[in-house]
Amino acid sequence: MQLFIANKNYSSWSMRPWLVLKAFDLPFEEVMIAFSEQPYGGAFKQKVLAVNPNGKVPVLLDEGQLVWDSLAICEYLAEQYPNLALWPVDNAMRTRARCITAEMHSGFISLRNQCGMNIRADLTALGQKLWQADESLRQDVARIEQIWTARPHPDGFLCGDFSIADAFYAPVVTRFITYGLPLSKSTQQYMQTLSAHPAVKAWVADAHAEQARVAFLEAQL
Amino acid sequence: MQLFIANKNYSSWSMRPWLVLKAFDLPFEEVMIAFSEQPYGGAFKQKVLAVNPNGKVPVLLDEGQLVWDSLAICEYLAEQYPNLALWPVDNAMRTRARCITAEMHSGFISLRNQCGMNIRADLTALGQKLWQADESLRQDVARIEQIWTARPHPDGFLCGDFSIADAFYAPVVTRFITYGLPLSKSTQQYMQTLSAHPAVKAWVADAHAEQARVAFLEAQL
Repeated sequence: MQLFIANKNYSSWSMRPWLVLKAFDLPFEEVMIAFSEQPYGGAFKQKVLAVNPNGKVPVLLDEGQLVWDSLAICEYLAEQYPNLALWPVDNAMRTRARCITAEMHSGFISLRNQCGMNIRADLTALGQKLWQADESLRQDVARIEQIWTARPHPDGFLCGDFSIADAFYAPVVTRFITYGLPLSKSTQQYMQTLSAHPAVKAWVADAHAEQARVAFLEAQL
Repeated sequence: MQLFIANKNYSSWSMRPWLVLKAFDLPFEEVMIAFSEQPYGGAFKQKVLAVNPNGKVPVLLDEGQLVWDSLAICEYLAEQYPNLALWPVDNAMRTRARCITAEMHSGFISLRNQCGMNIRADLTALGQKLWQADESLRQDVARIEQIWTARPHPDGFLCGDFSIADAFYAPVVTRFITYGLPLSKSTQQYMQTLSAHPAVKAWVADAHAEQARVAFLEAQL
């Protein structure tokens, strides 16, 4: 399997299936297509289009089968490896995991738009300004805290063991750190648990090691 | 099972799982929570919050199990009824169905924002203006046409027989009609196929029969 991704510092969509592949120790080759300076076009888009007709990463190529979209990739992997619990085994917990994952996939637009992922940066000052100014951002964060607080064990993952659901909320953890948003003790505890997971640590370390600084993805202070 | 939905004229998210339940003849009770005049709050939000902590429809209640988010509901139903092909049975086709469904779930923001679902309305004039003015809208439509054109049979559904994928693109069909966007012959053929499906016909008829006109969901001409 080949997983095509973009810069680890910036590409929150790429992070999700990469974490799942890594956390469950699935064999894959990582292919990096770095963002170019042109927003939404240019060399980056052309290179992705050569693989994926919708022009976006992440995309998985598995023996000729093209699988795109971070959620569809994870569902595909869950089907391919039914003996690994990519989704929780327990029925009610699996249903909950799918609900919160799909909610992340379609929602939290304010958080995603205002607080773009930028693992290397310290944007605490910007985060404070946004937090004061933007009620919809505060509502997004409140809902995320509500979801995270409902995890079965305070020192555990969202739906028991690490699952696709955690992979989908991992970029949020990095955003909360980058933008220094004010968060509850329970939320901070989950952020510590997730940050200590080997797959998350590996991605974050790679992001810090990247050299490229992509201007259009850097916040305007 | 109870499916909580909002007005059939406006609620594109509600339409998707309702179509799946109806198309596969699954037993369910429909519970309508009508939009109130307050955008994103007011009586509507309070009524939904009494059922679903994230304050959104659609939400499914199945013997005490709460399932929210249109995509998670459909995945839940696919698991509950493994003998019905809610997703295509063929592996490659099922993967494709999941990819295009997840792509719709997270994407096409311009189309969704600019051309809100409004089945009863004729917004052709507005549609022409938007079409001229908004390149991102044209790009969304071009990508949708690319997806639809790749269906296996010109007179069939997106991935063979009617599946969750068609339910996810059904609100787009109503938008294309409402806003009178310029579309290829192949796209128009798919729109006819989908519009003739009994479940789609039933939803559209119900939308036309609704009395309520919700001011904040009506386009500003």
